[in-house]
Amino acid sequence: MERTRRFGHPGMVVWFTGLSGAGKTTLATQFERILFDQGRAAYLLDGDILRTGLCQDLGFSIIDRRENVRRAGEVARVLADTGFIVLAAFISPFALERDQIRAKMPPGRFVEVYVNTPVETCEQRDVKGLYRKARANLIPDFTGISSPYEPPVDPELKFRTDQESIEQCLIRLQEFIENRLRAGR
Amino acid sequence: MERTRRFGHPGMVVWFTGLSGAGKTTLATQFERILFDQGRAAYLLDGDILRTGLCQDLGFSIIDRRENVRRAGEVARVLADTGFIVLAAFISPFALERDQIRAKMPPGRFVEVYVNTPVETCEQRDVKGLYRKARANLIPDFTGISSPYEPPVDPELKFRTDQESIEQCLIRLQEFIENRLRAGR
Repeated sequence: MERTRRFGHPGMVVWFTGLSGAGKTTLATQFERILFDQGRAAYLLDGDILRTGLCQDLGFSIIDRRENVRRAGEVARVLADTGFIVLAAFISPFALERDQIRAKMPPGRFVEVYVNTPVETCEQRDVKGLYRKARANLIPDFTGISSPYEPPVDPELKFRTDQESIEQCLIRLQEFIENRLRAGR
Repeated sequence: MERTRRFGHPGMVVWFTGLSGAGKTTLATQFERILFDQGRAAYLLDGDILRTGLCQDLGFSIIDRRENVRRAGEVARVLADTGFIVLAAFISPFALERDQIRAKMPPGRFVEVYVNTPVETCEQRDVKGLYRKARANLIPDFTGISSPYEPPVDPELKFRTDQESIEQCLIRLQEFIENRLRAGR
């Protein structure tokens, strides 16, 4: 409560889920900039930050990737507890871990953003060259190719980055979060 | 850099180490209040917060307790990266994990506070009844009784809560952190 007054808004977790290359980190990064410039306390949490620290003991098996997402969710919760708007960008392919994080957050403080870009588009982009490697069987259990992705059933927001521009997505995102922040004040 | 300007101070980790019952959480909790009232962004991180979330998969074997401290350090780093003054209160009996966290922080941003209360005093207090249980062999590997505590060699601050009052400790703590914050601005 006191922290909410200090920051002028309650903490929350905005969770971006979707395939590799869907545009999660791009959206989250640009949204962090917008929030920061508005004077809000925002923090981008992504796999790269955790993989070199908290999750350095984990590999890329399905079990380890689930644990990676679980820990990411717990860190996001702690950060949200401090009053931050946490922008978490993780493939997080399974509904279970996403739902567990939601269940642990106060109502309305978990916003699931489904970055629903078709696998064909992601594979075409292949910014990190991961799809090529997955097709060549160099990466086992690659989400969307050789491992399932469970789409959110009822996400707060859905984006098709192959149909909407990043700018359009950001406007919708901003409107939604703005309303949520106002409601929680 | 931008975050430092926003909060008016850089993030840092103030790490309280010492035996169970030494007064780590008491000191950290009261110091958090002082910092908050000064308008600073402070956050208390202790075992209870993590044990029910991030570290719920861990037990109390020496290996698990080391992993618990490692994860706590990584969370503290993330929080400090957002600009928070993190007050971390963990027995953290081994020098290795404490030194690893220090090594990962920018110079001057890790402050080790050795709450050096003699085991006899801690055992007399026995607020949680843990020493009694440890003496009855109900808790294996209990720090100070059946498991070693490696004192910090060169901590930034040292307190003897059996000789100094909490108020005296807080004054010294406040002075030290104030100087560090000013230096980092």
